[in-house]
Amino acid sequence: MRVVVPFAAEAPKTRLESVLDAEERDAFAEAMLEDVLDAVRRTGQETEVLATSAIDVDAPVTVDERPLTPAVNAVLAETDGPVAVVVADLAIATPEALACLFDAEGDVVLAPGRAGGTNAFVARHPGFRVDYHGASFLDHRRIAESVGADLTVVDSHRLATDVDTREDLVEVLLHGEGRSQQWLEDAGFELAVEGGRVDVTRP
Amino acid sequence: MRVVVPFAAEAPKTRLESVLDAEERDAFAEAMLEDVLDAVRRTGQETEVLATSAIDVDAPVTVDERPLTPAVNAVLAETDGPVAVVVADLAIATPEALACLFDAEGDVVLAPGRAGGTNAFVARHPGFRVDYHGASFLDHRRIAESVGADLTVVDSHRLATDVDTREDLVEVLLHGEGRSQQWLEDAGFELAVEGGRVDVTRP
Repeated sequence: MRVVVPFAAEAPKTRLESVLDAEERDAFAEAMLEDVLDAVRRTGQETEVLATSAIDVDAPVTVDERPLTPAVNAVLAETDGPVAVVVADLAIATPEALACLFDAEGDVVLAPGRAGGTNAFVARHPGFRVDYHGASFLDHRRIAESVGADLTVVDSHRLATDVDTREDLVEVLLHGEGRSQQWLEDAGFELAVEGGRVDVTRP
Repeated sequence: MRVVVPFAAEAPKTRLESVLDAEERDAFAEAMLEDVLDAVRRTGQETEVLATSAIDVDAPVTVDERPLTPAVNAVLAETDGPVAVVVADLAIATPEALACLFDAEGDVVLAPGRAGGTNAFVARHPGFRVDYHGASFLDHRRIAESVGADLTVVDSHRLATDVDTREDLVEVLLHGEGRSQQWLEDAGFELAVEGGRVDVTRP
């Protein structure tokens, strides 16, 4: 199976700007990418990066400057056989969670992200295409149905957690096991409990 | 196995006050409770409610006016054999997700909630006790370790999603299959995509 990890190399993670400056967002995004690549490899699959510009990472890189949807659809169109696409900010994804996705039966297997995204999928049907805008989980369900593909949805908190916001950093500190968690700790982040709610702080 | 669903009967779901009035919050909380009880029963387990005051629900109800932590610890102390505790606002929990929890091996099995909570657990060790304040997932991990209990953590988006906030309603509309989703739809809620992000609206 071809396993592709798309990566937006320019100005990633802008929704973290309240807690990380631009250079830090770059570094943290790279740490998350490395964690995702590691987790994929530890399932026994090879992996490759689909980046918007050249990046230095220990994996084959294809550059496609287009937005996510046409870039991923080009991969789907050019590939015979199964393709998996895993977004690059799944900082708490484990090999076990990804193996559940890769091993699940179905022409199309979706791992929904929180708030209606599609954080990872496997496509084994030649007609499946993506549309990442908006509630893509619903769109991908409809697209799978429209091409007559059997659909499976996997249920994983680790795969549902794409890291975009300050709240998501809580999940990385709680459940991360790799570079991303280490990066946050090295940058001084820690969990803070206030009024019974959990947040991050950088004292 | 004894399966207990704690329910705070007075003024539930205050963090939904920006979108639901007090009467609606009561009704929605009851719909979620019914969904959780249904999902538990459909795993083949019987279930009971541990409520802060008398409520009318189709399950045995024990009233304990104390806060969640002492009330649940009283259940753990009085029960010989395994106990599962499932919070009442897991509106998108399915029998499949709960069966994964109930069937997982381990003296203590935790289903973490988003932001460090503990949305469900199974305790098969007589020394395990709860402390729901703050990042209870971390506390429960420590407590399990301190009593020498083997720990298992289950990975489920459906069990990680306790419904407290407006953002959580998005998950119910996306993934719900029961009364809670129907209640929101009947109340006029629908998904809205703005600027690529998914929210709820009540036109």
